[in-house]
Amino acid sequence: MKIAYKIWLDSNGKAFGDGPYELLRRVHKTHSLHQAAFQMGMSYSKAWYLIRTLEERLGFVLLKRKTGGRSGGGSQLTSEAIGLMEQYGKFRKEAEGTLKTIFRKHFGKSP
Amino acid sequence: MKIAYKIWLDSNGKAFGDGPYELLRRVHKTHSLHQAAFQMGMSYSKAWYLIRTLEERLGFVLLKRKTGGRSGGGSQLTSEAIGLMEQYGKFRKEAEGTLKTIFRKHFGKSP
Repeated sequence: MKIAYKIWLDSNGKAFGDGPYELLRRVHKTHSLHQAAFQMGMSYSKAWYLIRTLEERLGFVLLKRKTGGRSGGGSQLTSEAIGLMEQYGKFRKEAEGTLKTIFRKHFGKSP
Repeated sequence: MKIAYKIWLDSNGKAFGDGPYELLRRVHKTHSLHQAAFQMGMSYSKAWYLIRTLEERLGFVLLKRKTGGRSGGGSQLTSEAIGLMEQYGKFRKEAEGTLKTIFRKHFGKSP
């Protein structure tokens, strides 16, 4: 037996969680929402709609679009998006470790 | 913004969580799976199927059926079911409190 869980941030609906975290992390790395979505097996339109929904619920912009230029534009995280990503990453890591510890305490097995 | 989460125990699939905990708690109180299911707006057949699935995944019996008699039978929790219910209840309570504390620590708001 092991513990299983889903955690997310809520603000009038799902506002941030593991999926968005992973998507932003990949945009940050590739400077491309296209590329990030592709890597996660997600359509670009779905990724774009997700970002817009999150921005609405969070109340701030996550992505800046760079248009034109030799590279054909790209996406860059706003400083708020980087902040949220870092905050969420630390929160998620601590939550995971602590939940496993609490599970072991009560059920006496390693998850 | 607030934290949201779902926690459950897994053993080849969902083996126990908030729904089953509530169902068992009500069977324990009413001595009737019929009554417990009704209180939760669940059909008896769904409740019965749920219990059988959990028993299979957990590897032990949760309910003893008492048949016949003046009261027309009823359901009683096994000692293993009572033990699991108590264990899960404590685990769940500690997990909830701790997750809220970790959220506040990282996001600085009361959930």
